[in-house]
Amino acid sequence: ISKKLEPFQYTVWTEFTPLAIKNKAINLGQGFPGFPCPDFVKESLADATNSNENQYSRPQGVPALVEEIARHYGKKHNRVINPMTEVAVTEGATEGLLSAFLSMVDTGDEVVIIDPSFDLYVPQTILAGGIPKLVSLIPPEAGQTKWGVDFEKLEQAFNEKTRVFVINTPHNPLGKMFSSEELQKIAQILEKWPNVAIISDEVYEHIAFNENKHLSLCDFSNLWERTATFSSAGKIFSVTGWKIGWAVGGPEIMRKISTSHLWTTFCSNTTCQGAVARSLRMADNPYMGFPDYYQWIANQYSRKKEILYEILSNTKKFKIEPMEPEGGFFLLGRVNPNDIDPKYLANGSPDFAFCRWMTENLKICAIPCSAFFSPQSKHLGHNFVRFALCKDYSEYEAVARILN
Amino acid sequence: ISKKLEPFQYTVWTEFTPLAIKNKAINLGQGFPGFPCPDFVKESLADATNSNENQYSRPQGVPALVEEIARHYGKKHNRVINPMTEVAVTEGATEGLLSAFLSMVDTGDEVVIIDPSFDLYVPQTILAGGIPKLVSLIPPEAGQTKWGVDFEKLEQAFNEKTRVFVINTPHNPLGKMFSSEELQKIAQILEKWPNVAIISDEVYEHIAFNENKHLSLCDFSNLWERTATFSSAGKIFSVTGWKIGWAVGGPEIMRKISTSHLWTTFCSNTTCQGAVARSLRMADNPYMGFPDYYQWIANQYSRKKEILYEILSNTKKFKIEPMEPEGGFFLLGRVNPNDIDPKYLANGSPDFAFCRWMTENLKICAIPCSAFFSPQSKHLGHNFVRFALCKDYSEYEAVARILN
Ligand SMILES: CSCCC(=O)C(=O)O
Ligand SMILES: CSCCC(=O)C(=O)O
Repeated sequence: ISKKLEPFQYTVWTEFTPLAIKNKAINLGQGFPGFPCPDFVKESLADATNSNENQYSRPQGVPALVEEIARHYGKKHNRVINPMTEVAVTEGATEGLLSAFLSMVDTGDEVVIIDPSFDLYVPQTILAGGIPKLVSLIPPEAGQTKWGVDFEKLEQAFNEKTRVFVINTPHNPLGKMFSSEELQKIAQILEKWPNVAIISDEVYEHIAFNENKHLSLCDFSNLWERTATFSSAGKIFSVTGWKIGWAVGGPEIMRKISTSHLWTTFCSNTTCQGAVARSLRMADNPYMGFPDYYQWIANQYSRKKEILYEILSNTKKFKIEPMEPEGGFFLLGRVNPNDIDPKYLANGSPDFAFCRWMTENLKICAIPCSAFFSPQSKHLGHNFVRFALCKDYSEYEAVARILN
Repeated sequence: ISKKLEPFQYTVWTEFTPLAIKNKAINLGQGFPGFPCPDFVKESLADATNSNENQYSRPQGVPALVEEIARHYGKKHNRVINPMTEVAVTEGATEGLLSAFLSMVDTGDEVVIIDPSFDLYVPQTILAGGIPKLVSLIPPEAGQTKWGVDFEKLEQAFNEKTRVFVINTPHNPLGKMFSSEELQKIAQILEKWPNVAIISDEVYEHIAFNENKHLSLCDFSNLWERTATFSSAGKIFSVTGWKIGWAVGGPEIMRKISTSHLWTTFCSNTTCQGAVARSLRMADNPYMGFPDYYQWIANQYSRKKEILYEILSNTKKFKIEPMEPEGGFFLLGRVNPNDIDPKYLANGSPDFAFCRWMTENLKICAIPCSAFFSPQSKHLGHNFVRFALCKDYSEYEAVARILN
């Protein structure tokens, strides 16, 4: 295998999803919905199938889809978005992120990434030839849940070689949503580095809990032009297997991403692009789809979060401290290394040991959080495991029967 | 834009497909079918939609699909193929090729490519950090159609730094199918370089004309283990927009490609994977689908080739010498620089001038072949334009009305 891929042969998904299947465990691990997509989404795909939308599309996205995206995000960001120049449709956010790195990073260029981070950013930076500069968040004190930003450290991470800054809100795995104050301060740092491009991964944008509101870094300090804000139909419409994602942002950064996209996949799945265009239209039209689809889906996740929080608070099967997330698909639990089966601890860190033990013994799968931390801060992840909120009610009922 | 992408901002597809649309031209340019996919393929997608196959899949391919691929290619290559270790499903052959290069090529490694070549191989090699070593085919004499292999030059292209050899049969754009004798001699060269991996792009495997037979390099000299042989549901079932491709080959090379795939797209479109699994099954079962689907589709292309050959032979609108292809989706025509509108010649090579002139003036789009040639052999491409055979009968009728 090539030297650049050698360190990236393992992923937590290719360990734990097969482990869950092998153990017939309830899979609260990988973040794919355990319930079917809404009927209007399914009908949208049937509709696109019937219209024979089956051939290569415009690489930047089929016109119907980029128009819906421009309309939807125009409303959200309170600006007119040009569908032809300010939208880039990608093969899920995954390929979109790769295309972003390939098109903006050369050998030796630096990428500033908030640590922990979704497990793609570091390998994709390295595939592009870049050097990841990881800036640790400040972990919550015992009994607290809030991860803080170390602005001083963040500021120090930038230099003349920095090409890209990556942020993720709602954050995977932490469930942190960056506040207006935090984004304002981050934007102030970025103002000092006008040539740095920004990747904002906001695929969980619609899932905010309690009083939290989703905010986008591109809406601060005129950062729109140089920010690629990513989202994903997979997360919005519960069709992670369709692999339709997109970025919105200024024409120059969109053109870069779309250029790279020509050589990664050329264009995204045309049939599903047609289905997503229809779904976005229906979701915003109360007469065609749900009364308010986005509110409805956020409510579902909120309810599941409460159910799971309750289950974990009351279990006697293991010691865990559930942590209230601010948004996103996941809830973290804090575990104590002293409580973990020494047999499992012998082969891994406490979080990995706990997740393997729970999958094999209790038939419930969760994801060890240290998988998302860089080597220098991995110890911070060792005490956290991640449970998915995107599963079916029946799965949480089954979890309750095991744990309570 | 990053330095590595800078030379690759132009593609012939993003010039000519929009140009055809703008001019309302008949598009015999980009190789996507102009007719709908067969009913059994459409029904397969409806079926997968109804079974809610909508979430992330096994990154190497859904079990149903890798099993059908192993069965189908097991018969073809006359060997037992392990569906779990000897198949890699990719996001079309495009992403599969990128994953192959990323996983086998590091900075400074060399990739031997037969020239001309499909327009992805060189940019993808360079994105992976590699150096393309292009080996020109020998162009046909006047009045002839056969492109030959310069075995001496090919042999000289290999050295200690060579990591990968790339071949494409049926060849795009030439329509050449490598003969048993040619593949045997190529295999003999490769035997001397046991550490070189082989990428064989065979996406047009089912389309062979007249007495020509499709042969795979992996079936020569025990090359199976180190060859990734690519194909694509897009070309086989006329659904280029589904973006489902695959490679078959030894477990080690498949593992490399699948590892890279984790970071390019993670997994391919699950719904369409399910639809392709069903389609492959039906296509090989005369009671469920066509009497013999593969024979039927090859006959369609053969008929269209004859129709187009006839049209081009008889036209008085321009001077062109149509060339009989051996297989694939395309037919080349030889043009003469002296016959081309000087206004168009001022802005490009003869083939580009001819294709732009024809699209704007006759409302028929074709692709200039020099786009597929390396700088050192670009002059060989200047006399050839490429016409697609994958369009609807009605499109060839319309072309005949214009040209004859
Ligand atoms: C691409 S695999 C993981 C997907 C995901 O969203 C998660 O579980 O974090
Ligand atoms: C990926 S765009 C071009 C597709 C194709 O097969 C061709 O026309 O050569």
